[in-house]
Amino acid sequence: MNQIDHIGIAVRSIKKALPFYRDMLQLTCLGFEEVPSQKVKVAFLSAGHTKIELLESTDDNGPIAKFLEKRGEGVHHIAFQVKDIQGKLIELKERGIELIDECPRNGANKTLIAFLHPKVSNHVLIELCEKIGRDKDGR
Amino acid sequence: MNQIDHIGIAVRSIKKALPFYRDMLQLTCLGFEEVPSQKVKVAFLSAGHTKIELLESTDDNGPIAKFLEKRGEGVHHIAFQVKDIQGKLIELKERGIELIDECPRNGANKTLIAFLHPKVSNHVLIELCEKIGRDKDGR
Repeated sequence: MNQIDHIGIAVRSIKKALPFYRDMLQLTCLGFEEVPSQKVKVAFLSAGHTKIELLESTDDNGPIAKFLEKRGEGVHHIAFQVKDIQGKLIELKERGIELIDECPRNGANKTLIAFLHPKVSNHVLIELCEKIGRDKDGR
Repeated sequence: MNQIDHIGIAVRSIKKALPFYRDMLQLTCLGFEEVPSQKVKVAFLSAGHTKIELLESTDDNGPIAKFLEKRGEGVHHIAFQVKDIQGKLIELKERGIELIDECPRNGANKTLIAFLHPKVSNHVLIELCEKIGRDKDGR
């Protein structure tokens, strides 16, 4: 567990945010997806061996809408790849790490995901993600 | 310019923050450095093809001290590797991107760095960095 899978950035509008990341930073757009369980739609951009995930809320009561209301746009989470997410969650809990999700749930881009509580990581929201299918960048 | 070099995280104390990133996320600590021009000391941790940079202020008037006062601990910036930082800054300025640094300055880990204005990037502070020596992870 040491590879960063992606960095999630909360934005008010993917349509307005995308041109900077795609055209100015020259990141390749890998595609779009809606994740109803998270009440978001996302755009993935390739950033070398990791990715940028732009997150736009689809519901005023969703987690990204609440984040935007409280903190405004900006980095929302950092996601680390893991091979056995359930095993890693059990291990971290046993070591005293507080979890938001004790069981993994479906994430974007064919993954199982779970969040750690940000108070354990200096207010950086850490997501663990395990690939359960082929990635948008083909890996 | 599409590889993320590192993610900078502002913390009140590297000593207190390090155990989570090193022992729980199992990132290898690559070393420590003080950057007097930025009024910070930093710890670098390897995260696959990118790095985590923990930033602790060494001066109450430094940029990280001000960030901590305003926003608390959390992600401070995302740094992208570039090959010709001065050329890239000129290109971005010509394309209408507002810059914090029009000229590169010395950064940690043998780099030249420059920041873009966060208003162009959805309040994500973007750093460009050009390597001018061997990286702490040997690359």
